[in-house]
Amino acid sequence: MSRLRPEEFEAALMETVEDALRSNGQIPVIVCGMAGAREGWKEAPYSAVPCAPPGLSEAVTPQTRDVRLQTFIIPGLKQLEPADVMRGEETQISGFLAGQPDFEGVICLPGTHTKWVRVSDRTITEFHTHITGEIFSLLSSQSVLRHSLGGEGWDQDAFIEALETVIKDPTRISSRLFSIRAKALLRNTENAYLRSELSGYLLGLELGGVGQKWLDQKTVLIGDSRLVELYRAGLKILGINAIIVDDKDITLSGLRHAYAELVR
Amino acid sequence: MSRLRPEEFEAALMETVEDALRSNGQIPVIVCGMAGAREGWKEAPYSAVPCAPPGLSEAVTPQTRDVRLQTFIIPGLKQLEPADVMRGEETQISGFLAGQPDFEGVICLPGTHTKWVRVSDRTITEFHTHITGEIFSLLSSQSVLRHSLGGEGWDQDAFIEALETVIKDPTRISSRLFSIRAKALLRNTENAYLRSELSGYLLGLELGGVGQKWLDQKTVLIGDSRLVELYRAGLKILGINAIIVDDKDITLSGLRHAYAELVR
Repeated sequence: MSRLRPEEFEAALMETVEDALRSNGQIPVIVCGMAGAREGWKEAPYSAVPCAPPGLSEAVTPQTRDVRLQTFIIPGLKQLEPADVMRGEETQISGFLAGQPDFEGVICLPGTHTKWVRVSDRTITEFHTHITGEIFSLLSSQSVLRHSLGGEGWDQDAFIEALETVIKDPTRISSRLFSIRAKALLRNTENAYLRSELSGYLLGLELGGVGQKWLDQKTVLIGDSRLVELYRAGLKILGINAIIVDDKDITLSGLRHAYAELVR
Repeated sequence: MSRLRPEEFEAALMETVEDALRSNGQIPVIVCGMAGAREGWKEAPYSAVPCAPPGLSEAVTPQTRDVRLQTFIIPGLKQLEPADVMRGEETQISGFLAGQPDFEGVICLPGTHTKWVRVSDRTITEFHTHITGEIFSLLSSQSVLRHSLGGEGWDQDAFIEALETVIKDPTRISSRLFSIRAKALLRNTENAYLRSELSGYLLGLELGGVGQKWLDQKTVLIGDSRLVELYRAGLKILGINAIIVDDKDITLSGLRHAYAELVR
């Protein structure tokens, strides 16, 4: 979305579906995510929580030059208070609920903008977005800390210790962050240790703020396998045994669930 | 420092002092800050706190091709636990103490990396660096929030409310930050309001972490006038009446104080 103007989406889509079009007269194309943003292909106005994950009946249909394309953009969700939005995750949740329709609890979708979502009676009742991942990425690539964080190694003990430290006392986070740089300068602390520590500090700040009423629920983690393992370890410190759900096909499953409305 | 290789410092210095050299046979040049970093002109090993602000006797002298230059680089300070470093601020503090040698209390120097420094009996006993300013700069120029923060306006009420919110409850900061973006999307909230709110959230996180034993001291603010006003407003919420010290000549005053050792 951030690299396409509205009139460029159709051509980008055609690159993907050309082969399928050749062997089919007309094909429905179901889209979720940022293509429905105001600056995307065509704005799909947010559905407001509490609501079920939106499907085809809430979708918008952009005009296409190629009449063989029958395109639907599924809207995202908005929450008025506290103000929050999502685009794309609602379809992942729909995919998850297609397999587990009776799920009651919290779904956490870690990523650049991690979503924490409460689900009850097939309805998304409330959600919160944390920009932990984006802050990690900016600090480790653009800030003064970048000099001390390169490489690939990982130090699980440093990660856990940093997590526990910040969950216990979140207030001193902005001086702890600078201390990462100072440790590199004064103690030649290894990059793997410092990167794991940064990750622990930032995730600790997020988990410390999720709130007890959320943590008392059954908790499911959906996302990149490396990232969900970090969240699982963090939640364990808070006494939560989160269940990891394989996310490989979950977006597809959500789109397929929407498609089922079309052919029903 | 970040744009010069070690061998390029002398030429950069010459651009500044050429005129003075023409009318003087030899001139002493006193340098503070990042020129003394490991990747700078010549490393000036940190002095360890507790100590008085370092002066000429701790300085290193880089070799210069031009023999008329007599160059001294004043070292920065290090603190082993919690690990922390500064380069440049020690000379500002020296300049401040030159005028107020009996000062006892806390000096706060707001900036990209804000320094909080305890001074007692002409000695720097302890300090902490907060990277609040750098996080503000990264979030407002590089993150998803950047779309909602442009322009020049300011909303003092939004700033104060955000400060109070985070001082009271620092844990939810990473979802509050995303909420800034959501407010722009859902309520068309003005950029001035949102930028002031971001500033309040981040400064609140810093001030909430400074610690009572620091806040019980006499507090002096030294730095950019706009920034120190924000810190003063924040400290007022915590019941602290900080004194603002004009910083215009304070680095010069510190360098002059070092020079006095030379001609004594």
